[in-house]
Amino acid sequence: MYKPVTIKDIAVALNLSVSTVSRALRDTYDISRKTKDLVSEYAKKVNYKSNPIAVSLKNGRSYSIGIVVPELANSFFSQAIAGIESIAYERGYNTIITQTHDSAEKELANVSHLTQRSVDGLLISVSSETKDYSLLKRLNEQGLPMVLFDRIIDEIPTFKVTSDNYTGAFNATELLIRSGRKRIAMLANAPQLSITNERMSGYLKALTDHGIAFKPELVKNFGKGNNSDRNISAAIQELMAMKDKPDAIFISSDRISISCIRALRKLNISTDEMMVVGFSNSDVVDLLSPSISYVRQKSFEMGEVAMEMLLKLIESKYPVTEFETRILDTELHQKTS
Amino acid sequence: MYKPVTIKDIAVALNLSVSTVSRALRDTYDISRKTKDLVSEYAKKVNYKSNPIAVSLKNGRSYSIGIVVPELANSFFSQAIAGIESIAYERGYNTIITQTHDSAEKELANVSHLTQRSVDGLLISVSSETKDYSLLKRLNEQGLPMVLFDRIIDEIPTFKVTSDNYTGAFNATELLIRSGRKRIAMLANAPQLSITNERMSGYLKALTDHGIAFKPELVKNFGKGNNSDRNISAAIQELMAMKDKPDAIFISSDRISISCIRALRKLNISTDEMMVVGFSNSDVVDLLSPSISYVRQKSFEMGEVAMEMLLKLIESKYPVTEFETRILDTELHQKTS
Repeated sequence: MYKPVTIKDIAVALNLSVSTVSRALRDTYDISRKTKDLVSEYAKKVNYKSNPIAVSLKNGRSYSIGIVVPELANSFFSQAIAGIESIAYERGYNTIITQTHDSAEKELANVSHLTQRSVDGLLISVSSETKDYSLLKRLNEQGLPMVLFDRIIDEIPTFKVTSDNYTGAFNATELLIRSGRKRIAMLANAPQLSITNERMSGYLKALTDHGIAFKPELVKNFGKGNNSDRNISAAIQELMAMKDKPDAIFISSDRISISCIRALRKLNISTDEMMVVGFSNSDVVDLLSPSISYVRQKSFEMGEVAMEMLLKLIESKYPVTEFETRILDTELHQKTS
Repeated sequence: MYKPVTIKDIAVALNLSVSTVSRALRDTYDISRKTKDLVSEYAKKVNYKSNPIAVSLKNGRSYSIGIVVPELANSFFSQAIAGIESIAYERGYNTIITQTHDSAEKELANVSHLTQRSVDGLLISVSSETKDYSLLKRLNEQGLPMVLFDRIIDEIPTFKVTSDNYTGAFNATELLIRSGRKRIAMLANAPQLSITNERMSGYLKALTDHGIAFKPELVKNFGKGNNSDRNISAAIQELMAMKDKPDAIFISSDRISISCIRALRKLNISTDEMMVVGFSNSDVVDLLSPSISYVRQKSFEMGEVAMEMLLKLIESKYPVTEFETRILDTELHQKTS
């Protein structure tokens, strides 16, 4: 097995005592300049680094933070991670990234693994499958600094940052209504996610404000296991086959927005026949055909805010008891072509 | 600071000795069933996990592997990571993911951090900025199990897996030639990357085989710092302004392929006027407009192969001295619309 170079290895190589090498590296007064130079030159050559676990035991910090997200392939999360890293790097923290693929079991494994490897804190956006938050609750009670972002959890008292999903969904739905659409379907993520609920509320409010009755048969949820391109395509075909078929779709998830575009293309349905507004942070949403209007979240900024919040918790000299939940604006982009 | 629950915490809580708790958890013969049940129930309740660092010291394994990639937002890498994880998870290994944003400095920091935190091995695709491989060479000499994937390095003797970039580029260029194109530009990644060289060779071979003279002024490289949408757009405008302007572009990078599509759209250049074939593993390349032909790499499979190779190194009882470099086929997808 590979082992990092230790002080003992250096001592053996230079024929010095471990204590001499240790003191030379710490630059103590009782070691000669010549020995110090010899040791530091050799240490550099063999890539010796003081063990971060040992450093962590000494000063109570590992300067590593753990990140848990559902899916790296989702642009929203890769953008949020870039935001987290921009602050972490500046402040001397390393990031350890893990993904759950929206599996509750994998989330449990990732969180356990990270917290047992001495991270100073955790940034997490929960999987769409998670219903049991007891591990996170317990870690929070035990004092692990933790910030929830995007997909947040009410029951855990800590700092949180998410988007104004309610207003984002309201504006998206209202855009459809103002464009003359009356039967507006909604395709949504798993119902237990905070973001799904908030986006659902925004959709309902827009319908109510404009005197449009809510039709439960027009709302469909997709979670892990039933959110493939095939599932979305089948759902759209189902909607198209209804007697009183919808003339618009509001989509509350990036992945489903992309699947919907693919389905419309395959089924040869124009966005005049079925107008679409979807949440999407895809880097190429402006290049997709058929083109759609979309709600964009401030993902990079969310990452920055989350990391700033985590640093507040990590670096506080006293237990923190007052927490803030930050809500970031979303942007509605109307399709141009 | 947050500390994981220790055996000592359990001992204090249950009013037992540390040694009793430790033996109860290890299920030794000298502890009563009643005590064992009490301890294991409490350990479960407080989320006690044996310290992986301690486990690692005991059996020589941490069951964690480190992954270093240039950019998570690049679909190729998120797909490769999914492949790595599929094997790792099955074999009981945790993955720790880091990205370098194509910075040599960040790569150095990530590799140092990972290796100092007791990973059993490293999977790495180097940044486009890296020219000094001395840290990786030294870690390899010191026996750290290491597999290079996609962007590989000749000087490091270990297992490697990459795509058949040469044939991928040859086929892409030949498709342009067979479509009647004669002045074929190439937009490429940083010149020091293995993949850039291999793709350049394939492009040159196709030109030569078809009796087309190579024109150096038609080849442009883009690395970290000059590969923004703006840079690519300017390069395409430059090509279009040439007296003998090109009628096709071969693009050897995913990011540049997307930027090129955006530029063609902005500059109102049709793909009839400027035919394009680009390397791309984007999940939505089939939905982009204007649509292009593209070379797709077997990214998920590459991740699987890389992880299998790493496990061979980690689990070998003897030092491994014979290494394999696997080359995976690419797929050419011709545009349909």
